Amino acid sequence: MVESSVEHFLDILASKEPAPGGGAASALVGAVGAAFLSMVANLTVGKEKYKESEAMIEELLKKVSMFQKELTDLIEEDTNAFNKVSEVLKMPKNTEAEKAKRKEKMQEALKYATQVPVGIMEKTVEVLRLHERALGRTNQSALSDTGVSALCLKTALEGAWLNVKVNLTGITDKDFVKTQEEKAQKLLDEGTMLADKVYKAVLQGL
Amino acid sequence: MVESSVEHFLDILASKEPAPGGGAASALVGAVGAAFLSMVANLTVGKEKYKESEAMIEELLKKVSMFQKELTDLIEEDTNAFNKVSEVLKMPKNTEAEKAKRKEKMQEALKYATQVPVGIMEKTVEVLRLHERALGRTNQSALSDTGVSALCLKTALEGAWLNVKVNLTGITDKDFVKTQEEKAQKLLDEGTMLADKVYKAVLQGL
Repeated sequence: MVESSVEHFLDILASKEPAPGGGAASALVGAVGAAFLSMVANLTVGKEKYKESEAMIEELLKKVSMFQKELTDLIEEDTNAFNKVSEVLKMPKNTEAEKAKRKEKMQEALKYATQVPVGIMEKTVEVLRLHERALGRTNQSALSDTGVSALCLKTALEGAWLNVKVNLTGITDKDFVKTQEEKAQKLLDEGTMLADKVYKAVLQGL
Repeated sequence: MVESSVEHFLDILASKEPAPGGGAASALVGAVGAAFLSMVANLTVGKEKYKESEAMIEELLKKVSMFQKELTDLIEEDTNAFNKVSEVLKMPKNTEAEKAKRKEKMQEALKYATQVPVGIMEKTVEVLRLHERALGRTNQSALSDTGVSALCLKTALEGAWLNVKVNLTGITDKDFVKTQEEKAQKLLDEGTMLADKVYKAVLQGL
């Protein structure tokens, strides 16, 4: 899917096919956010003015391009997770045995469809931590790009969280629900705080 | 550029080439938001439960796919606008005449580079108005997708606004600055209000 053209990808999103869904779109927007932090870092490296930060920024670049790749992979993985749920919905439910099998498979599919957007949240928070560390140490002429990156990462985080929330409503394993809910809430709180901090610093600097 | 694969487009964004910049990324995220509203509408049309809204949703679909197309075009247009500024930066400035010519061309280029993100803001607000009108009248099983769409449109709006702001700082024509600033602020206020309203409704419904 990520081999499709941007134009075609948008048309697939717009179609009545429910996949790719909100998790995949969130992963894409997160990947845009990561890519944009890379651009800002790339515009910083080699500049005399930012020589002191050079080693840190080069380290950041390695990490952020890894996260960009992982978020891009999560576009596909979320779509796979979504398709697994759709497959279970097509399973027969005529006998008690079929019903039990279908129920069991649905629980598995929903757990997977929850863990993928939790993974998207983890990656966006990782990128936001790098953002915070780089604050004030990257090329100031790319300040608005830093802001756009933080905005994208926040939307990816909140969008993935909506998908965690919606999938958890169908899961009966209370321990799993509690663990994932707490994990997602922590990521949401930390990531939102970091994104808002970066955005605020950008606004003050413009 | 929008003919590139998603993967390749992300790598172009991440590179040290300053274009595509924040306006283009905002237009892309806005196009994702528009595409996602289309998906939600496509998942509503033809469903017995939403028959009353059918005509309205079909009308919305036509409009939103037009806005998706326009936002996709704005990815390229913002990059063109950015490149025009870069070209002026390369103009000679040895004589007084050259300096004056360069200054004049820079003002033109910056005005264009402001108007493109203002256009991105206009389109995202148009899509958000459609969102508000469709609230509660689209397929409720795609509620989280409605939320992701609103989040993307808000980020596109705020991201484009950062780019308006940064380009306005270099423009000497006070009337132009005042007009565009007021226009952008109005769009930001209306769009933020609409996006927050949709997102809040989604959260309550999940």
